[in-house]
Amino acid sequence: MKFVRWGEAGAEKPGVLDADGKVRDLSGVVADIDGTTLATMPEITPETLPLAGDVRLGPCVGSVGKLVCVGLNYADHAAEGGWDVPTEPVLFMKATTSISGPNDPVILPPGSEKTDWEAELAFVIGTRAKNTTDGAAHIAGYFILNDISERAWQQEHGGQWTKGKSHDTFAPMGPWLVTPDELGAPTGRAIWLEVDGKRMQDGTTDTMIFKPDFIVEYISRFMTLEPGDVVTTGTPPGVGLGKSPQVFLRAGQEMRLGIDGLGEQRLPVQGA
Amino acid sequence: MKFVRWGEAGAEKPGVLDADGKVRDLSGVVADIDGTTLATMPEITPETLPLAGDVRLGPCVGSVGKLVCVGLNYADHAAEGGWDVPTEPVLFMKATTSISGPNDPVILPPGSEKTDWEAELAFVIGTRAKNTTDGAAHIAGYFILNDISERAWQQEHGGQWTKGKSHDTFAPMGPWLVTPDELGAPTGRAIWLEVDGKRMQDGTTDTMIFKPDFIVEYISRFMTLEPGDVVTTGTPPGVGLGKSPQVFLRAGQEMRLGIDGLGEQRLPVQGA
Repeated sequence: MKFVRWGEAGAEKPGVLDADGKVRDLSGVVADIDGTTLATMPEITPETLPLAGDVRLGPCVGSVGKLVCVGLNYADHAAEGGWDVPTEPVLFMKATTSISGPNDPVILPPGSEKTDWEAELAFVIGTRAKNTTDGAAHIAGYFILNDISERAWQQEHGGQWTKGKSHDTFAPMGPWLVTPDELGAPTGRAIWLEVDGKRMQDGTTDTMIFKPDFIVEYISRFMTLEPGDVVTTGTPPGVGLGKSPQVFLRAGQEMRLGIDGLGEQRLPVQGA
Repeated sequence: MKFVRWGEAGAEKPGVLDADGKVRDLSGVVADIDGTTLATMPEITPETLPLAGDVRLGPCVGSVGKLVCVGLNYADHAAEGGWDVPTEPVLFMKATTSISGPNDPVILPPGSEKTDWEAELAFVIGTRAKNTTDGAAHIAGYFILNDISERAWQQEHGGQWTKGKSHDTFAPMGPWLVTPDELGAPTGRAIWLEVDGKRMQDGTTDTMIFKPDFIVEYISRFMTLEPGDVVTTGTPPGVGLGKSPQVFLRAGQEMRLGIDGLGEQRLPVQGA
């Protein structure tokens, strides 16, 4: 199944794609697409549900409890940023208030000069995971997350990465949440990002250092993952920080990004 | 007012202290003590409410959206850890799943050898703050937070501090949430922590580098603070990491900590 959340920002309804890729209204079946409903979703025949029409898509998971990120998880991305290749996953968190829809405007923060992109494979947790040895059992669905980052705030203002990762609109999620049975293995997937039609990132999930199942097991040693928590798994090479000369986002540009089987995001970039 | 949350873990009810320090049941007035209810709390006369009896206290804020932390915010604590004194606040986040009650057991993670304490002044946000220049207006209450930290996980496993800060029971909050009008200025307050009766931290909030009002203003440049978000402001000297030789928590010990006007925590330390 491919689940979506659609409608007005902050008041999204649950939906599911039918065989033609059209959004069907799931609000008669479940209250939302979130940790609770994903774990208890009944059998659905999308074609029996009402069409939603031509609607805005919101972030594909609601009520996200925490947003845990793996850094430097593609060896060649670590290299382009000048970081060592990690021997175990680097973890950090983005503020959940940074989450936005897959086609919503990305707002450059006031004074931002180094806002950058990171196309990433993300997933949502379906069942509580604590010291688990079966990571796969806890993944309820995969989707695209653009881990947008203000590099000056991330690297030039002291200490931890949190500051550069957490601005509103810095975590567009979706368009779809694709269940593991429908997606199949998340490896071997093209993952790419363009700015105004110019290909910036052009990778594959095969070059990830740590894979999703292991990432769940690893994180669950350090914190309990709850249904509805989102984990994003790092980005392949091609971020603006790694270009020579460096390039960053400007108001008026458009990002387009995608992962095989998980759809595409189209994100206009706006000034504050 | 001094608000509390009381009853079984995960099913706490709202309460308020009366003039004798006894817990009164607020569940007939509001659903919980959280970001929503704090902003809209009606006038209360605690003595008119039913007594709750001798009850467990839970964390003093429910439904915490995010838990933002300031690091190295006392100059002499930075020195004892061998860090530079920051020129602007160092920010990181703890997982909200780490939150526990003020007298609940602190569970040492499996394999932990360097679990450490950090007595801190924390506060909860009452109204949305984004690029605010009036931090004080957004603070709905102050309380104690023990920012428990596994130092090996924080410092010896690559990258960011998240891993060492986020284990379950690593953020005991309370006993009380004290409103700013009742507390007065949060400066000039003794802040202390003992392990098995031995004084380990013995500071004052006067030596904080960045004060709560400014911290709200600063964080709100980088992310939107929502009602119910909790911010904790760093710890004075005396953590186990800074002792010579270093000392860390062992199963069977008890931590006791307090801040003038905000009550005390009493935390038994248990093995996993």
